[in-house]
Amino acid sequence: MAKDMFLLWGSGSPPCWRVMIALEEKNLQGYQHKLLSFEKGEHKSKEVLDINPRGQLPAFRHGTNVVNESFAACMYLENQFKSQGNSLIPSDPAEQALVYQRSFEALNLHQKMVDLITYTRRTPEEERHEEAVKRNKEGATAELQIWESHLQKTGPYLAGKNFSMADVVFFPTLALGFRLGLSQKKYPKLGGYHDLLKNRPSIKASWPTHWLQNPPTMDPLKDL
Amino acid sequence: MAKDMFLLWGSGSPPCWRVMIALEEKNLQGYQHKLLSFEKGEHKSKEVLDINPRGQLPAFRHGTNVVNESFAACMYLENQFKSQGNSLIPSDPAEQALVYQRSFEALNLHQKMVDLITYTRRTPEEERHEEAVKRNKEGATAELQIWESHLQKTGPYLAGKNFSMADVVFFPTLALGFRLGLSQKKYPKLGGYHDLLKNRPSIKASWPTHWLQNPPTMDPLKDL
Repeated sequence: MAKDMFLLWGSGSPPCWRVMIALEEKNLQGYQHKLLSFEKGEHKSKEVLDINPRGQLPAFRHGTNVVNESFAACMYLENQFKSQGNSLIPSDPAEQALVYQRSFEALNLHQKMVDLITYTRRTPEEERHEEAVKRNKEGATAELQIWESHLQKTGPYLAGKNFSMADVVFFPTLALGFRLGLSQKKYPKLGGYHDLLKNRPSIKASWPTHWLQNPPTMDPLKDL
Repeated sequence: MAKDMFLLWGSGSPPCWRVMIALEEKNLQGYQHKLLSFEKGEHKSKEVLDINPRGQLPAFRHGTNVVNESFAACMYLENQFKSQGNSLIPSDPAEQALVYQRSFEALNLHQKMVDLITYTRRTPEEERHEEAVKRNKEGATAELQIWESHLQKTGPYLAGKNFSMADVVFFPTLALGFRLGLSQKKYPKLGGYHDLLKNRPSIKASWPTHWLQNPPTMDPLKDL
């Protein structure tokens, strides 16, 4: 069933990982895929551009239907395979409201982490300011505290007692955070959540390949 | 039916406007609402914080279900009132794929316009760089060209022949762009799209109140 699906992905990219978790949750193992290297610039190759003109990963195709935006691909898979695998959007109105709210809210953490991690790469040296880095760190810390408080109220999963789309969208960013030095001691609820989810079959099966092979080489988030 | 819904909103805010268009499209007129002023800082008032701890607008509640992220609220309304008003997510797989793709892709234009418009407000004077403004302008221009090309291929609406969630998410940002000086001559497809949609009943009924009363006072996007 998943043989007509094709995913181009990069290892450790939270958007790619989201789609891979959703594919696992919907029992869509056996899809075609190809691992590309961001470092070698392969996300700008013709193979990617033919599917995703933005030159970004993931690039995802189901038959002739192309859905490259990662959260969009997850929503598409959930809807097209509603009764297959695990339901990621509950039908109960109160549960559904919370799942949508947390799923979209998760994009805030992702953006703040990306702003922080990519600041040096994005900003020419002569335009860099210590104060801007400090503000980015404060923004990311405040955001992490919001999620620590969310989990306090509605754990063990992000939207309550069941795994949902919110976890699909959020977990890869958080796992990248811990890989990059985030302290489990400072964020005990997020640490416990990470430990609960890391052994979930869909997440274990899609764990970034180069993380399994290599220890982290930097910890830019250690003082958040 | 919509009497158990409550929206706190700010005039001209694309996220607020999205929710208001979705409410109109789903025939949910008659909801309770209150217009707040960003300039007076009312989005940080207790009234907002009680519903949306992030102190942002919109703040939206349906009964006891709270959904503040604007796109999340639109998805929730579409799902809870699937057979009421206009369908915003088609069931045909190819159409659905394109609607999801364009809906989420629209967040890129929104982010790039916000980065550009709020640069001066966000960045302390001693950290501002002309080169950064130039890069932001180039980023927004490239993004607008992507959408010009999308409409060339799949108009008249953003995801083809029918109005959809993609238009709900995208239109308010584009309308803000034209209000702030964007040239219809340079972006004729986007201009035509804007003219097609501005008289749609859901959009006309929710048009920002202060835009109707006051002409624009600045045109920061005129040279994009």
